[in-house]
Amino acid sequence: MADEVLFEFLHMELVALIHRDAVKDEKDGCIAKLESIGFRVGQSLIERFTKDCSRFKDELDTMKFICKDFWNSVYKKQIDNLRTNHQGVYVLQDNKFRFLTQMSNGKQYMEAAPKYLAFPCGLIRGALSSLGINCIVTAEVSAMPACKFQIQIQRM
Amino acid sequence: MADEVLFEFLHMELVALIHRDAVKDEKDGCIAKLESIGFRVGQSLIERFTKDCSRFKDELDTMKFICKDFWNSVYKKQIDNLRTNHQGVYVLQDNKFRFLTQMSNGKQYMEAAPKYLAFPCGLIRGALSSLGINCIVTAEVSAMPACKFQIQIQRM
Repeated sequence: MADEVLFEFLHMELVALIHRDAVKDEKDGCIAKLESIGFRVGQSLIERFTKDCSRFKDELDTMKFICKDFWNSVYKKQIDNLRTNHQGVYVLQDNKFRFLTQMSNGKQYMEAAPKYLAFPCGLIRGALSSLGINCIVTAEVSAMPACKFQIQIQRM
Repeated sequence: MADEVLFEFLHMELVALIHRDAVKDEKDGCIAKLESIGFRVGQSLIERFTKDCSRFKDELDTMKFICKDFWNSVYKKQIDNLRTNHQGVYVLQDNKFRFLTQMSNGKQYMEAAPKYLAFPCGLIRGALSSLGINCIVTAEVSAMPACKFQIQIQRM
C-alpha cells in the first residue's frame, strides 16, 4: 500500500507544482509538460518491465501487455476493457482510474480531470514508443472515476 | 520492483523539470521547491502509515520508526545507522541511498548530489512535522552512494 500512495502523492504534487508555476492562461503548456514527463517515465518503465519478455507477436499483443502487466504495475489494477476497430484505434477503459478515485463525481469537478490525465496519457505514449509504436493518446471522462484512453496509431 | 522504479523515475523527472524551468543561478530556489514538495509528500505519507499505530513513546521511538518502517516503505531498505547526542541532534546514515546508487562515485559528480537530496530531506521534515516534531534536516555526502541525514530538533 505504501508504494501506491507514494507514487500517487508525488504525482499530485507534480500536478500542483506545474500549475502553480504556470503563468495565467497557460493551461495547455501545463498539460504538455505533464504529458512529456509521463512520456519519459513510460519509456524508462517499459524498458525495465520488458527486459525479460519475449518479443510481442503483434500490435494487439503489445496492447494486451499494456492493459495487463504494465497497468497493473503502475496502477495496481488492470484495464477493464480493451476495444479496437482493427484499423489502428484502441480504446482502453478503466472503470476506476486511480488518479480520479479521490475526486467527487460532480460536474463541477469535471474540468479538473484533464490535469490528472495528461501524465497517464504520456505514460502510455512513452511505453508504446519504446516498443516501436508511434501513437497519439487522448483521455476522456464521462463519469468519474471511469476513464477511457484512446490510442491512435500513427503509421509512417 | 516495478513500484520502486516508478517512484525513482518520477522523482528524477521532477528534479530535471524543476532545474530546467529555473532561471540561471536560481539553484537555491530549485532546492527549496524540491524540499517543499518532499515536505508535503512526507506529511501525507506519515498520516497514512501511522493510522493504525499506537502512540510513540518518545522522540527516539519516533526516530526509530522513521529509520525502520518509514524508510523501508519509501526506499525499500532501512537506515543503516542512527546516532544521537541526546540533545536534539539525530544522524541517520544510509550506506546505499537509493537516489544516489545510479551515480558514479567520482568527485566531479559530487556537486550534483544536493539536487537529489532536497526531496528526501523534505520528506523527513514533513513526516516528523506531522508527528509533532519541528526540525531542520540537512544531508551530507562524503562518498556516494552513502549519505548522512542530520536532524536538528527545534524546541519552542
